[in-house]
Amino acid sequence: MTFVNVGTLGTQPGQREAVVAILTRANPQLAQAGCLLYEVGTSEESPDTVFVTELWTSAEAHQESLQLPSVREAIAEAMPLLNGQMSGFQYQISGSPLRD
Amino acid sequence: MTFVNVGTLGTQPGQREAVVAILTRANPQLAQAGCLLYEVGTSEESPDTVFVTELWTSAEAHQESLQLPSVREAIAEAMPLLNGQMSGFQYQISGSPLRD
Repeated sequence: MTFVNVGTLGTQPGQREAVVAILTRANPQLAQAGCLLYEVGTSEESPDTVFVTELWTSAEAHQESLQLPSVREAIAEAMPLLNGQMSGFQYQISGSPLRD
Repeated sequence: MTFVNVGTLGTQPGQREAVVAILTRANPQLAQAGCLLYEVGTSEESPDTVFVTELWTSAEAHQESLQLPSVREAIAEAMPLLNGQMSGFQYQISGSPLRD
């Protein structure tokens, strides 16, 4: 079942754009690993937060992707720029009103 | 800018599948109104929660869609099945590692 992972990452003051730059760096390994959607963004109401929405072919594909060298490097690069506050949720897709 | 709306809807005990059925009912008006993605789902860890992830061409398109008769009817139908607990966040997309 298609798996959804959505989350917020708290950043150190002034580091939001640097984290966005890391997370949006093109990475063809993700699609090969089963990533269907990976959207990174911000909100004016939350100056020190980066938002992420991901769809994966399965929860396992998502989990395994965290072992990819490119993903581990991006996480290591971003970690010092984060403030440790994270939130979000994960779920399995049941359906969509955009599909019959 | 592409707009993301993600959220959780608390349901009355035993009403989760009924809410999923309402929210996943095919509705071509949504795509016409600028909906790019609308994924509804559940999680085994949260028996009384429905999760929704939406992408829209803009925040305005999302806002205007709430006036569509079909959307208002779905909300009215689902409301008695909800427990009032809602959470989530909204943001503007900056980019994606799936795109150059």
